[in-house]
Amino acid sequence: MTRIPKVRIGVIGGAEADVASLETAGQVGRLIAAAGAVLVCGGLGGVMEAAARGAKAAGGLTVGILPGSTPSDANPFIDVPIATGLGFTRNSLVAMNADALIAIDGEYGTLSEIAFGIILGKKVIGLGTWDIRGVLTAKSPEEAVSLALRSVTSLEGAKDGKNSR
Amino acid sequence: MTRIPKVRIGVIGGAEADVASLETAGQVGRLIAAAGAVLVCGGLGGVMEAAARGAKAAGGLTVGILPGSTPSDANPFIDVPIATGLGFTRNSLVAMNADALIAIDGEYGTLSEIAFGIILGKKVIGLGTWDIRGVLTAKSPEEAVSLALRSVTSLEGAKDGKNSR
Amino acid sequence: MTRIPKVRIGVIGGAEADVASLETAGQVGRLIAAAGAVLVCGGLGGVMEAAARGAKAAGGLTVGILPGSTPSDANPFIDVPIATGLGFTRNSLVAMNADALIAIDGEYGTLSEIAFGIILGKKVIGLGTWDIRGVLTAKSPEEAVSLALRSVTSLEGAKDGKNSR
Amino acid sequence: MTRIPKVRIGVIGGAEADVASLETAGQVGRLIAAAGAVLVCGGLGGVMEAAARGAKAAGGLTVGILPGSTPSDANPFIDVPIATGLGFTRNSLVAMNADALIAIDGEYGTLSEIAFGIILGKKVIGLGTWDIRGVLTAKSPEEAVSLALRSVTSLEGAKDGKNSR
Repeated sequence: MTRIPKVRIGVIGGAEADVASLETAGQVGRLIAAAGAVLVCGGLGGVMEAAARGAKAAGGLTVGILPGSTPSDANPFIDVPIATGLGFTRNSLVAMNADALIAIDGEYGTLSEIAFGIILGKKVIGLGTWDIRGVLTAKSPEEAVSLALRSVTSLEGAKDGKNSR
Repeated sequence: MTRIPKVRIGVIGGAEADVASLETAGQVGRLIAAAGAVLVCGGLGGVMEAAARGAKAAGGLTVGILPGSTPSDANPFIDVPIATGLGFTRNSLVAMNADALIAIDGEYGTLSEIAFGIILGKKVIGLGTWDIRGVLTAKSPEEAVSLALRSVTSLEGAKDGKNSR
Repeated sequence: MTRIPKVRIGVIGGAEADVASLETAGQVGRLIAAAGAVLVCGGLGGVMEAAARGAKAAGGLTVGILPGSTPSDANPFIDVPIATGLGFTRNSLVAMNADALIAIDGEYGTLSEIAFGIILGKKVIGLGTWDIRGVLTAKSPEEAVSLALRSVTSLEGAKDGKNSR
Repeated sequence: MTRIPKVRIGVIGGAEADVASLETAGQVGRLIAAAGAVLVCGGLGGVMEAAARGAKAAGGLTVGILPGSTPSDANPFIDVPIATGLGFTRNSLVAMNADALIAIDGEYGTLSEIAFGIILGKKVIGLGTWDIRGVLTAKSPEEAVSLALRSVTSLEGAKDGKNSR
């Protein structure tokens, strides 16, 4: 079994989305996997499924944190489904398990995940989503993934710096 | 023991707030209790404590849904503390246990509660808080409590209409 | 509004139970209320409902911590329903919100609540329930409630002693 | 990236355990991985760590469902840490995410996981743990893993049978 990457990028967005958002999500997923990071999402359809499909197409690993209590609720592109039985209360767990979050489209569930991400001090990057204080707007999937990864690397760097003293 | 009222209004807002927001929260709490409704909040300090203090001053009943696992974490104006041990993941439970929500000031925790309230189809009224789609802005504590109670009454009316068929 | 008592006794047991267990639960609920304590339970039917009914008959206050996300799921004898949306994962919250637990009959859900109660250092008293290490068997509702209340008083005493030093 | 196995076996037991139990846990973890299944556990020390170490030694994949809100709380043998921030309330999630559970030693936290496993209809196999109704006692790691896998296969078989009709 190959080594599992440690960096995890969350993709959040609605279970229902238009074609352009799904296309964006697929590209984001592919780029996350191509960069060698794990994709974390809510495990269901729409943006979550499109991102997971993209990640699998690029050979990545996908984790889906599900609202229901049955792992088989996950979309077919989830490698590691995590059932929670918490309903939408599981949204905070998606934020906990990503080093940075990319929000694509989305409604109020996505808004709650953005809020938890910011509370946890994670970078939240937006692509056609809620335009609120604290969300960093990106213009393309490439920019979004690049900003997400850079925020994690700088975190890692900060940690290393701290440890090396 | 007197009968416990069935209508519950949630007050959400930060554990830290300026004097004006605390004053507003106190008035909102008083008006909720004066109207014969139960106050539900997150049970801690700041806006939550000011609202609970106001409600108790008007002879009301207060419920605090706490992040920690110890009921005694609650502020001294909470009659029924509910420990959850869920951390900020408990924010969704505050939204579940109110028929309508009044948001006062607040940061990202409050934003998550606003999001869950809207997902649940509850009316969310704002007083100096996040100005986002779905939040109904009020100009005074009186207007906020009036809007909150009216939304519940119309819900009750709708239910009655349904049942009477 | 009368002052809300601070001592809370949990009654745990199945949503389905035989007549004798329901009768026992009713007596336990009555005795908890008569002693001036709040009854905490899971808010649904069977042992939970019988205990809540008993507590209300004696003029007590009842709290029901529900698995679902709708407060109206509670049985009609619950004064303060708390919706959690956690499913059976809410069992730990029942244990958190009681100073002592009385288990009556019950299956594996009750067993999980017994386990959480013991983890939290609460006294767990059994009436015709799981006979496992850590559960104190009582012979009657009177003895069960007496043991539960005594454990809380001694806790309070211990706290006072600590504070007085 | 290699395909992630679909069958998941949970190993539950205390964060503190004697040498014999840790040795047993290590063998159980190794056998789970050797059989091509994923190991799911609570992600911390003791039995959880010994089982994960065993699974990694045999080239398996390990998932740790953590009580805290920080993925880095996981022991070093966890490939996919899942932070929950739920404290011991996360015990039910361990049960949800395993097709069968093997309990080794353990105290009341383990007991709660056994209870949730049985509620969910999963086979729970015991090795030197709680000897209660519903737990199938095994005499060796080999027998435990064999019983666990057989219960899943029979489930799969049942599903297949259903689907093929």
